[in-house]
Amino acid sequence: MRSLRNWSLVIAGVVTAIALSFNASADGRAVTLMPFPASFKAANGRVALTSTTTVALRGVQDARIRAAVNRVMRRLEGRTGLLLQRAFSTDASAATIVVDCQAPGATIPSLDEDESYTLTASGSQVVLKAPTVVGGIRGLETLLQLINGDASGSYIPYVEIQDKPRFRWRGLLIDVGRHFEPVEVIKRQLDGMAAVKLNVLHFHLSEDQGFRVESLKYPKLHEMGSDGDYYTQAQLRDIVEYAAQRGIRVVPEFDMPGHVTSWVVGYPELASAPGPYSIARGFGVFDPAFDPTKESTYKFIDTFIGEMVKLFPDPYWHIGGDENNGKQWAANPKIRAFMEERKIKDAHELQTYFNQRLLPILKKHGKRMMGWDEIFQPGLPRETVVHSWRGQQSLFEAAKQGYDGVLSAGYYIDLLESAARHYAVDPLPANSGLTDEQAKHILGGEATMWGEWVGPETIDSRIWPRAAAIAERFWSPREVNDVDQMYRRLEWISVQLEELGLTHERNRDVLLRRLVGNRDVSTLKVLADVVEPVKGYQRGGQQKWSTLGPLTHLVDAVSVDNPGAMQVRRQIDDFLNSVPNAELPAQLRATFTRWRDNSRDFDMLVTRAAGLAEVRPLSDDLAALGAVGLDALAMLSLNAAPTDARRDEMIAILDRAARPKAALEFPFLPMFREMVFATTMQAEKKTLTLVEWRARVRAAANPPRRGRGAGQ
Amino acid sequence: MRSLRNWSLVIAGVVTAIALSFNASADGRAVTLMPFPASFKAANGRVALTSTTTVALRGVQDARIRAAVNRVMRRLEGRTGLLLQRAFSTDASAATIVVDCQAPGATIPSLDEDESYTLTASGSQVVLKAPTVVGGIRGLETLLQLINGDASGSYIPYVEIQDKPRFRWRGLLIDVGRHFEPVEVIKRQLDGMAAVKLNVLHFHLSEDQGFRVESLKYPKLHEMGSDGDYYTQAQLRDIVEYAAQRGIRVVPEFDMPGHVTSWVVGYPELASAPGPYSIARGFGVFDPAFDPTKESTYKFIDTFIGEMVKLFPDPYWHIGGDENNGKQWAANPKIRAFMEERKIKDAHELQTYFNQRLLPILKKHGKRMMGWDEIFQPGLPRETVVHSWRGQQSLFEAAKQGYDGVLSAGYYIDLLESAARHYAVDPLPANSGLTDEQAKHILGGEATMWGEWVGPETIDSRIWPRAAAIAERFWSPREVNDVDQMYRRLEWISVQLEELGLTHERNRDVLLRRLVGNRDVSTLKVLADVVEPVKGYQRGGQQKWSTLGPLTHLVDAVSVDNPGAMQVRRQIDDFLNSVPNAELPAQLRATFTRWRDNSRDFDMLVTRAAGLAEVRPLSDDLAALGAVGLDALAMLSLNAAPTDARRDEMIAILDRAARPKAALEFPFLPMFREMVFATTMQAEKKTLTLVEWRARVRAAANPPRRGRGAGQ
Repeated sequence: MRSLRNWSLVIAGVVTAIALSFNASADGRAVTLMPFPASFKAANGRVALTSTTTVALRGVQDARIRAAVNRVMRRLEGRTGLLLQRAFSTDASAATIVVDCQAPGATIPSLDEDESYTLTASGSQVVLKAPTVVGGIRGLETLLQLINGDASGSYIPYVEIQDKPRFRWRGLLIDVGRHFEPVEVIKRQLDGMAAVKLNVLHFHLSEDQGFRVESLKYPKLHEMGSDGDYYTQAQLRDIVEYAAQRGIRVVPEFDMPGHVTSWVVGYPELASAPGPYSIARGFGVFDPAFDPTKESTYKFIDTFIGEMVKLFPDPYWHIGGDENNGKQWAANPKIRAFMEERKIKDAHELQTYFNQRLLPILKKHGKRMMGWDEIFQPGLPRETVVHSWRGQQSLFEAAKQGYDGVLSAGYYIDLLESAARHYAVDPLPANSGLTDEQAKHILGGEATMWGEWVGPETIDSRIWPRAAAIAERFWSPREVNDVDQMYRRLEWISVQLEELGLTHERNRDVLLRRLVGNRDVSTLKVLADVVEPVKGYQRGGQQKWSTLGPLTHLVDAVSVDNPGAMQVRRQIDDFLNSVPNAELPAQLRATFTRWRDNSRDFDMLVTRAAGLAEVRPLSDDLAALGAVGLDALAMLSLNAAPTDARRDEMIAILDRAARPKAALEFPFLPMFREMVFATTMQAEKKTLTLVEWRARVRAAANPPRRGRGAGQ
Repeated sequence: MRSLRNWSLVIAGVVTAIALSFNASADGRAVTLMPFPASFKAANGRVALTSTTTVALRGVQDARIRAAVNRVMRRLEGRTGLLLQRAFSTDASAATIVVDCQAPGATIPSLDEDESYTLTASGSQVVLKAPTVVGGIRGLETLLQLINGDASGSYIPYVEIQDKPRFRWRGLLIDVGRHFEPVEVIKRQLDGMAAVKLNVLHFHLSEDQGFRVESLKYPKLHEMGSDGDYYTQAQLRDIVEYAAQRGIRVVPEFDMPGHVTSWVVGYPELASAPGPYSIARGFGVFDPAFDPTKESTYKFIDTFIGEMVKLFPDPYWHIGGDENNGKQWAANPKIRAFMEERKIKDAHELQTYFNQRLLPILKKHGKRMMGWDEIFQPGLPRETVVHSWRGQQSLFEAAKQGYDGVLSAGYYIDLLESAARHYAVDPLPANSGLTDEQAKHILGGEATMWGEWVGPETIDSRIWPRAAAIAERFWSPREVNDVDQMYRRLEWISVQLEELGLTHERNRDVLLRRLVGNRDVSTLKVLADVVEPVKGYQRGGQQKWSTLGPLTHLVDAVSVDNPGAMQVRRQIDDFLNSVPNAELPAQLRATFTRWRDNSRDFDMLVTRAAGLAEVRPLSDDLAALGAVGLDALAMLSLNAAPTDARRDEMIAILDRAARPKAALEFPFLPMFREMVFATTMQAEKKTLTLVEWRARVRAAANPPRRGRGAGQ
């Protein structure tokens, strides 16, 4: 490696105080790496990328690294517009980019794979070194994120990066049970995962609403349980191989003993009640559960898993085990008798019995058992991996007892919480209370894309870009945690993810155009830019729960972290903080005026777009908010207070707007309330510090009873 | 059928004068049908679509019509937001929508299929009747295009439609030889084709640049000729079946004896010169040609076609036959000797000999031969179909001699001409000079998507929405030819096509975001909204010709009929015509000001986006045009003329802007020139009619030598 001068030292994760400098390389340009590396240094200088740029392989030259380099070079060409040499250079000392992997790594991607790498750009060369091909693949993505350009051309800035993951298990769960996702949808998620260094696809393949795998042993599973929407075995092999090429493991989940309605449509004898059954269309917890007392159940499972292990080579096997309500068990006299006979006192213990029966079957097929944290019951075999969805405590508790664990609580991306919220959740926070030895049992985490409300057209925007922020949490040092910087980098990464075919940005306008019926979505955008989907499980309270319903509503179009709403919130905040920005009042005035005046155009739009009728009340709310906002701005700049009547009227408007409609809400509303309440509290401002005054206004505007939405 | 009152009669194709009323249904709403039906009547009233809407099948109830209805109902749900019953209603008299096909039609879609249908919405029912399932499938697409909605809900307006195609052969050629297109790309084109009633996928499967079909008999074809980018036989069967489900024929083309470089990479013995060969990367006409003098050539072709006919059941077989430059033949002494021996006097005759040898091979395999119009030579077997790409005359000439023909001249959508230009080309114009009997030989036409400059990310925007306008030309009566109305309907149809997964609208911003690197494309859009790709074969003169080059330039992003550019052109035209619109001068002033002031932001952008350096000169041009435009507006409103110096300066700016850069041009420029020249010709205006004055200005601004771009 050439000697480097003039390094500006930025080691992430060591000194939080210098985290601010994440954002700039030595030449003052944005560093848009995500996940941010364990160690990053920048220097003045660049390695130019031109049409004579060449790539050489040193060390391992197997098919996987060659294919990975080729894919990355095509993306580099796409970003830079350059046409590069197709052949690898045979002269590594003269090549622009050198990829040097020491070993091919495991053929089947492994939890124990060394994914570290170093990346150095200096002199006229970029050198990527890694102990394994998977490390090389991780580093190649970093290399792509480093590409920069100006009028004189594209380049890689001088850097020295030493990187490795904080956690070994960095997963994304995709639930294809509730809504099926075709192969190409899964493949582009795998590409996105690789781009942000996620390494486990947790493939949730069976649900009450659908059984998604072709079984030759039990064909009625996919024939009667899938509406024809399932993966053939050839397609699954293809997906697993596609993932392996990217250093991604595929861990299948066949949820049992609950969540099995789609199984028992074709094989009712597996259930604990006679049936007949039909595929579930609604959402929630359903009664059907395997009968754990019949030997035939285990024989079926044994044969089924025996068939499936040929498709899924990963040593881990997820058995689900969640949300069995026990109703069928309690209602079945034979099962009750079985429990009495064996002194099994409740459904939990019976499920533990079931799990204990599964264990030798999995072992026989060479698999290690993993399940949701309901299975964490006394007697759970020690080699089981506990997957925590209900909270971090069960994970820590399990670790203390020597169980390996993976965290998903806090990473439920289907609940449409902000990236910031997920980003703040750490699988292993400093205050976990675990010893170093116990902490080793925390393998990592998984973002979960549950499938109730997503289809092929919308799933990308429910995964991305937020999953990239979670990927950083799993990969980067704990101290990489500045939210504003995360959002700034996320915007760049989000656009880069599009080159992989991901549709999270592009399909927003597609859905808006469909709602309007033609290309002019400007009126609808005034509203769409400032609303967000309701969070958590609220949508089901507002729209019909069915896997068959169309996912083409406005709520399906709008972003989770809607940039327009975030901007309004920030601008009001700055305004109330008297940030010196002369344009701020005019900008807010323009925004509020646009809101106020949009409703007439919106009403016109509804006269030819039936799908917008449900969001018209939101448009009315927005118009009213615009008028209130203009009033509030005027009063604040004149130091005038509203009359009591006007104040009550304004608060009534705020309260009405706070009620979600069409599964949408105004995420800036708590901040907006502060602005309105501030008009009545201007006298207090004189006697308080700004911070004190803001705190009082905040408390008055959003008293604690308003719940977690307050103060955002 | 219920009796209908209050019909407003609009029979397309009978009275051109009433073509203007195409645009409105009885309640004054836009009718956005494309292709427009042979006969269309509207009445006041509507059939409401609600969550209780049901569908019943009468007549044929086979798998194909059931699947087609299901697909259409899912799209209906997507557009309306409704969740409908999944099961078909068993009570046709009470169902909202009744689909009544008399016969299943040919299992393999046929040129002779009856595609007609009638569609009546009256009372509370929509009834679709058709003699065949394919006719039913065509009518279902019309039904979808009729969906309308307002605040009270979605509905189908009362209509009575009797429809049938004008031509039987309505094709789209997709060249996957030069750039490969994955299966899902082809499938979404098939969906788009079905939506606008195109019925032939002409699949151009082999080229100098790639051989795209798996051959088990001759595996070196795809192994050595495709870079790994080919369709497996299973995938091709899947595509053919997918097309058949939509009533679309798949006619394969294996181009020979020229355009065969990719074949002879693996099998050099087929060529007329010894080789070795490598896959072509550039574009144009290459030398390699099959050796027509060797019996082994025909044996190879026979075996190959024998294998391929199992994949492609359509009775037509396209042999290409175009652009063989004859160089290899002329240089080969054995071939020269062969010609002398048989008194074959030139390459044309030798190619006719080759075709005559192909004919019995094709016949043996049950295929009818089709080829490009080069094959139309004396001695061409009469059953051959002539596919005209060089002009309409060869088509008419062939028809006179009794050959069937298909027209592609005028429909080369890869040349990026406006939809209007293609729309104006009629396969059988009133002045064709053909007798009715001869005219029957004109089977129809095909739009051709040649693959030099398209990849999976961009091909959609090069096919759509223009192919929809061509589809109307092939389907609708000759008299449906109003360009403005075509464009108005095209905008609606274009948005509807997106629901099929087509990316022609959505990927524009994807490419812009990639060029900029992040989400804010506003500065780039000021330019991107008013430029268009250069037309014809000009791009190759501006950018490197290679199948390997990235298709991520600005030229790949911008639309062919760019709405922004079209608007500027129209506004200037209106302004010069003194159209009474008080806002027009201010609108133009705002546009020109934006152009003028954009270059500073653009220059900033280039300092961090290397890919934009090539378009910076265009941004400079636009800024200069903005300043000129502002000057011209001011002079015209003040009745002032420029000084000679200023006039020369302005013209120099116009001339500079007229030179394409980065394969882009300003399509509004001829109109803009008129505005500038008008400043110098204001005196003449007083003594002339407006029409006369405009004609003089046009002639001065764009003298004929400027070629066909002038006057647009």
